[in-house]
Amino acid sequence: MDYEISIEDETLVAAAQEIIRKRYEWERHHVSAALRTKTGEIFTAVHLEASLPRVTVCAEAMVIGKAISEGYKDFDTIVAVRHPDPDSEDREIKIVSPCGMCRELIADYGRDCKVIIMQEDKLAKTDILELLPMRYSR
Amino acid sequence: MDYEISIEDETLVAAAQEIIRKRYEWERHHVSAALRTKTGEIFTAVHLEASLPRVTVCAEAMVIGKAISEGYKDFDTIVAVRHPDPDSEDREIKIVSPCGMCRELIADYGRDCKVIIMQEDKLAKTDILELLPMRYSR
Amino acid sequence: MDYEISIEDETLVAAAQEIIRKRYEWERHHVSAALRTKTGEIFTAVHLEASLPRVTVCAEAMVIGKAISEGYKDFDTIVAVRHPDPDSEDREIKIVSPCGMCRELIADYGRDCKVIIMQEDKLAKTDILELLPMRYSR
Amino acid sequence: MDYEISIEDETLVAAAQEIIRKRYEWERHHVSAALRTKTGEIFTAVHLEASLPRVTVCAEAMVIGKAISEGYKDFDTIVAVRHPDPDSEDREIKIVSPCGMCRELIADYGRDCKVIIMQEDKLAKTDILELLPMRYSR
Repeated sequence: MDYEISIEDETLVAAAQEIIRKRYEWERHHVSAALRTKTGEIFTAVHLEASLPRVTVCAEAMVIGKAISEGYKDFDTIVAVRHPDPDSEDREIKIVSPCGMCRELIADYGRDCKVIIMQEDKLAKTDILELLPMRYSR
Repeated sequence: MDYEISIEDETLVAAAQEIIRKRYEWERHHVSAALRTKTGEIFTAVHLEASLPRVTVCAEAMVIGKAISEGYKDFDTIVAVRHPDPDSEDREIKIVSPCGMCRELIADYGRDCKVIIMQEDKLAKTDILELLPMRYSR
Repeated sequence: MDYEISIEDETLVAAAQEIIRKRYEWERHHVSAALRTKTGEIFTAVHLEASLPRVTVCAEAMVIGKAISEGYKDFDTIVAVRHPDPDSEDREIKIVSPCGMCRELIADYGRDCKVIIMQEDKLAKTDILELLPMRYSR
Repeated sequence: MDYEISIEDETLVAAAQEIIRKRYEWERHHVSAALRTKTGEIFTAVHLEASLPRVTVCAEAMVIGKAISEGYKDFDTIVAVRHPDPDSEDREIKIVSPCGMCRELIADYGRDCKVIIMQEDKLAKTDILELLPMRYSR
C-alpha cells in the first residue's frame, strides 16, 4: 500500500475516465477500467449491464479480456472508475475499488498486478492480493 | 433459421478461428467469438477461464464489450468457436452455440442479432431470440 | 408443450406464490421458485439480490440447491414467480420464465424436468430442453 | 481476527463436514457451508457445480438462501468446507475461505457476520468485512 503514484498512473486514471465519458449510457455502461501492461500499453473498456443482473460483466474483466485478445498478458496496474448517475449532483467520475469477483479475476491473470484505489480521498496503489486476504484456494 | 450463409459469415467464422488459434492457452482460453457490426466491422475476442468457475467470462460477452468500448453498437452477426483440448484427437476448431447466459446478453445488446451455429453438421444462422423461446421478462 | 396442467401443478404455483408473499423484501427478494420432486415432495426458496448485480442468485438455483441439500435429486417440475414492485398497480404474483442461466442449471440437474410458464395468459408446461434449443455443448 | 473459537463454532464446522460427507458427488457437489443464526439455528447446504462454469453456485450463497427462505436473516457465523477429490490422498474435509463473490454476498446479508477460516493450520474467526478491505461501493 506504499507505492508512489506516478505520472503513468495518473494517465491511466485519465484514460479510464475518458472512455466512460465517451461511452456512458444510462443503465448500460457506467463503469470503465484502464489497464497498463508491463510494456507500457494502455487498454480501456466499459462494463456491460444486462437486463438480468447476474449476466452483467464488469469493466475490469472486459479490459483484461481485451488486452489478452490483443496478445498482451503481463499486467502492471489496473484502475476502474464510475460515471455519476443522471440525477447525481456530483458530476465527478470517481475511482472505485474492484468488486470481490474482479479481485479474483485480476489475481488469476496478474498475481502481482497493482490496483489504483482511493484511500482517505487520495489516490493510492495496492497489490491485488492485499484486496483478497486469506484468498480461497483448494 | 432460414438465413443464407454468406461469404461474410464464413469470413466471420474464420476470424473467430484465427484468434483462438493464436491465443489458445490450456485452462485459460479455449473459446473465442467474432462479431460483425451492421457497418461491416469485425471484432474478435477470447474467453477468460478463472480459477473459480463462477468468475469465468465467455467470449461472446468479451467481444460485445470490446466492440462497444470501441464505439460500435449495432450488431449484425455473432459466432463462437471452441479450440480442442490438448488430448483431443479431433483438432478442428468448431462452432459452438452460445450458452444460456450469453443468449441473454446478446439479446440485450442486439435484439435482432443473428447467431451462426451448426445444424446437422452444416453452418446455419438463426435469430438470437429463437434461442431464447419464452424469454424471461418482468 | 402439450402437457396437461394438473392439480399438483397448481399446488406448486401456489407454493411458490406463498413463500414470496411471506419473504418479499424490496430489492432483496422478489422472485421465488417451487420445485416438485418425482416422489412428490415440494421445496420452495427465494432469490437473493445482491448489491453487486453479478452476485445475485436466482430462485430456481436456490430451490434446486435446497432440495439437493436435503437429499432429493430427481426433479419433476419447477416454477418461478415474481412479486410486484411496491409502486406497481398490478398486485398479482405472476409466473415468470426461467432466465438463460437457470435454464442451463435446471437442464444440468434435471434433463427431463418440466417447467411451468405462462403462454398466451394461460398456465403451460414445457420440457426444460425446449427452452434451450441448440444447447451449448463441447 | 481475535475471536475465540467456541464449542458452537466447532459444531458448525462439524455440521458443514457432515452434509458434504453425505451429499458429495464428483463434479457436482464438493463444497458445503454451514450458517449459524444469531438465535442459534444451524443451516447447511452444498454447492451446485454446473456444466457451464459460470452457472455454478457456491455453498455459502446456497446456505444463506436456505436460511432466508426459512425466515431467518440475522446471521452470526458461516463456514465452508471442501471434500477431497477422488484421487486425493489426503481424505480430510477441510475448511476453505469464501471466494471474492461470496464475500460480497455474505457482507450484503450479514455486515457483521463472522467467518471461520484456517490460519496457520488453526481454526480462526474473522469479520466478513476484514476479507473485503476497501470494499467496492458506489
